[in-house]
Amino acid sequence: MRAALMYGAGDVRVETVADAAIEEPTDAVVRVVVACVCGSDLHPYRGMPASEQGTPMGHEFVGVVEETGSSVAGVAPGDLVIAPFAWSDGTCDFCREGLHTSCRHGGFFSAAQAEAVRVPQADGTLVKVPSDVDPAVLPSLLTLSDVYGTGYHAAHQGGVDARTSVTVIGDGAVGLLAVLSAKQRGAERIILMGRHKDRTDLGRDFGATDVVAERGEAGIEAVRELTGGDGTHVVLEAVGLRAAYDMAVGVVRPGGTISRVGVPQYADAPIGFASLFGPNVTLTGGPAPARAYIERLLPDVLDGTVDPGRVFDRTVDLDGVPEGYRAMNDREALKVLVRP
Amino acid sequence: MRAALMYGAGDVRVETVADAAIEEPTDAVVRVVVACVCGSDLHPYRGMPASEQGTPMGHEFVGVVEETGSSVAGVAPGDLVIAPFAWSDGTCDFCREGLHTSCRHGGFFSAAQAEAVRVPQADGTLVKVPSDVDPAVLPSLLTLSDVYGTGYHAAHQGGVDARTSVTVIGDGAVGLLAVLSAKQRGAERIILMGRHKDRTDLGRDFGATDVVAERGEAGIEAVRELTGGDGTHVVLEAVGLRAAYDMAVGVVRPGGTISRVGVPQYADAPIGFASLFGPNVTLTGGPAPARAYIERLLPDVLDGTVDPGRVFDRTVDLDGVPEGYRAMNDREALKVLVRP
Repeated sequence: MRAALMYGAGDVRVETVADAAIEEPTDAVVRVVVACVCGSDLHPYRGMPASEQGTPMGHEFVGVVEETGSSVAGVAPGDLVIAPFAWSDGTCDFCREGLHTSCRHGGFFSAAQAEAVRVPQADGTLVKVPSDVDPAVLPSLLTLSDVYGTGYHAAHQGGVDARTSVTVIGDGAVGLLAVLSAKQRGAERIILMGRHKDRTDLGRDFGATDVVAERGEAGIEAVRELTGGDGTHVVLEAVGLRAAYDMAVGVVRPGGTISRVGVPQYADAPIGFASLFGPNVTLTGGPAPARAYIERLLPDVLDGTVDPGRVFDRTVDLDGVPEGYRAMNDREALKVLVRP
Repeated sequence: MRAALMYGAGDVRVETVADAAIEEPTDAVVRVVVACVCGSDLHPYRGMPASEQGTPMGHEFVGVVEETGSSVAGVAPGDLVIAPFAWSDGTCDFCREGLHTSCRHGGFFSAAQAEAVRVPQADGTLVKVPSDVDPAVLPSLLTLSDVYGTGYHAAHQGGVDARTSVTVIGDGAVGLLAVLSAKQRGAERIILMGRHKDRTDLGRDFGATDVVAERGEAGIEAVRELTGGDGTHVVLEAVGLRAAYDMAVGVVRPGGTISRVGVPQYADAPIGFASLFGPNVTLTGGPAPARAYIERLLPDVLDGTVDPGRVFDRTVDLDGVPEGYRAMNDREALKVLVRP
């Protein structure tokens, strides 16, 4: 089959690789209908050392089950399924607590920009959707694989509800879907920090009430001005850079919560008396257990109440994946859909 | 009146100072019945630069109202009252949310090792208790001023309940009362990390099911062994040193919460993928809004269900305060009660 491999920074190639195949009785093989390029794929795209050995890429996909292992009972060949970016057994204590990313038999997909994917723990991992679903809804279903679930995780962990004001840091796909999630959870005041007007416009459509284009101290000042000097109850940090963390600390209200879903590109940061402790600020978040949220978010996607798939603004085939990386990296595209 | 002043590390003197007096119509003057020395007072006792100017000390007291300002309605001369270590108006948005330490008209006491204290925002701050209370319960009432409320805040912010396993780091008064609080909130497994046997014995009386005397990597290893390798759902960090934070990160279960009430003696610490983010660990805590918890904790203190006052193992008069500091600093005493 054909698949995208990264050989180093800026070097993505589409090549023929071994077919995805059943290895364990709990596996399924899923033929990819739609996949995509993730903002987190851009980190290696910018920094991966060159290698002779290509690294398979991609962790978001919706597809059709092609084959199942002997112990798989919940899905069958022909089923249309959503795969969250981590696989999980669905039965261990962590999964029962909704932390599928810490599943005792779990792992993370890393080869979904391809024609097909081997899915471990298929029963726990895959979520069946009606096969006759309107094809126009496929991009929105695909967001449940990662970016929508991740934005929702931020809002969920942050405790966003009708009583909380919210700042969202970052106007990438996750930030925009954190806005949508905050809106769904009832937040009335949602300040989006981002400076790409086409993206923040989409953020306004998703529910942002205010947009702050400034960064750093000026951005903090702007959010504080909008909130009577106090900052917001919740800050959803969807970037992962240290500067974004510092902004989060700057705009969170005393007693509030910073919920991070941008993968931190730093190790140490201020958490002492002046930053988090003194004002009783809570820091939460992490890799989203996307699997935990799919059933909750699916109905509104299927009936068109929400359209998170609007984050995709370009579509490529498998051969177009390298160009898709380039377009996202150059910020020509917000998020690139792949139809193998 | 007489009061304790600190002139530098190791230099506490009892001197005559200006009488506490009403300054604002919302003030009260409270004659101190019992006060005490706090673990946090030991930080300046170890590190304060020498000065010509003495710094008044102490922030925990129970006393009798002596005089009230013209607008004070909730307490009257003769009332026996508990003062939390921060004053607060009790009416602003932060107070209504239970974050009295961020009160819009609040502040922190700093002169309670004295014969009397001026109490701003008396109506919001002071909690009346029956004047005929058994004198034997006074030490327990005094813990509501800070250490019991602080231990309880740790457990409350950490979300301790019957379903959570708990590690408490630190066998000082706050750590021990964090154990008591975790027990009160229903925790069945409470691991106390501390190495002073007389203190950890009291911790066992308060509800600790296991004691780990090791520190650092050995301590982490010991807690992990006790918990099937996973760590506990909640870690209550009642020390404030960086080494204690590192232990907390080491013993918290994925998806769990580190709740800090030890005042951090550090600014930066690891919060990246390997420490907090990857396992979806939440970091919370801060200075306890002790005022928020007094009514909740008072009944069990008054009826003798709990006896948090057992953390006091030495009593001095005002002249004995310098010796009280020395005894606590040398770990001869766990916590020193002051009867002016």
